[in-house]
Amino acid sequence: MASTDFTLRPVGVVRTRFEDLPSTPTQASLQRDDEGLLELDPRYQDGLDGLSGFSHAWLVSWLGQASDLEFTPALRQVPNPLRDQQREVGVFATRSPLRPNPVGLSLVRILGVEGTVIRFGGVDLLDGTPILDIKPYIPSIDVPDEATRQGWLDDVTG
Amino acid sequence: MASTDFTLRPVGVVRTRFEDLPSTPTQASLQRDDEGLLELDPRYQDGLDGLSGFSHAWLVSWLGQASDLEFTPALRQVPNPLRDQQREVGVFATRSPLRPNPVGLSLVRILGVEGTVIRFGGVDLLDGTPILDIKPYIPSIDVPDEATRQGWLDDVTG
Repeated sequence: MASTDFTLRPVGVVRTRFEDLPSTPTQASLQRDDEGLLELDPRYQDGLDGLSGFSHAWLVSWLGQASDLEFTPALRQVPNPLRDQQREVGVFATRSPLRPNPVGLSLVRILGVEGTVIRFGGVDLLDGTPILDIKPYIPSIDVPDEATRQGWLDDVTG
Repeated sequence: MASTDFTLRPVGVVRTRFEDLPSTPTQASLQRDDEGLLELDPRYQDGLDGLSGFSHAWLVSWLGQASDLEFTPALRQVPNPLRDQQREVGVFATRSPLRPNPVGLSLVRILGVEGTVIRFGGVDLLDGTPILDIKPYIPSIDVPDEATRQGWLDDVTG
């Protein structure tokens, strides 16, 4: 098993209207009309060339309020849709922000790119959340070409 | 601009038949029938509970052959589909593995979970690639509910 640790440096930060976790939507897609800004570190500006041609992008974010390896999130957690049942599932079967590596994945709509600022729709990130990467959304590689099953989520949503 | 660096620790490693980069498919979805194994660090085993109920998952991987911050990938690159034209676009408008933070995102089919080993279909990762996170694929949050545009990629694929 690899024992090396890896180091990441934020490439930017998001500005949203959500200043505390309880008020922040749990998924960007559930808040599609809300707008946010991604302020890119100017040294990466050339990397944005061509992004505005895409309608959607993934924001890979750093969700670590506790940004060190001493914080250990629970490996079994109760996701929001299972709160009534108080049913726990493994963290790798959830989209919980409290993960062994607190890396977030948000699908957002690209509304505009001006200089080093990306205006986006669909906000599930706290104001000030560091961004690690931006990837264009490409349906041919990001959508399965077969039927999907959603395990415990199918149980509650039918 | 945030100046802090963040540290990640792999939660597992993949075993695939691809032992050098030139032979490795560029996207998991292009190699859907190929199978790989994810060997999870046993300390995270409880986190897998419930994952086998999902048909697909995201593997968040560490693509850094040069796993330090000294390596600086080009901010403009020629993606494979634009090689004939030798046309460069910004790295954040591509899925190139050479990124400011070399974090990969692969959509895979879950074929089975036994103990700490996940058997998956759809391989775009080199044998031995460290895995940072596993997230269930959830169409309601991972698929836009509107038409999409793929910028430069639409130009070449029509």
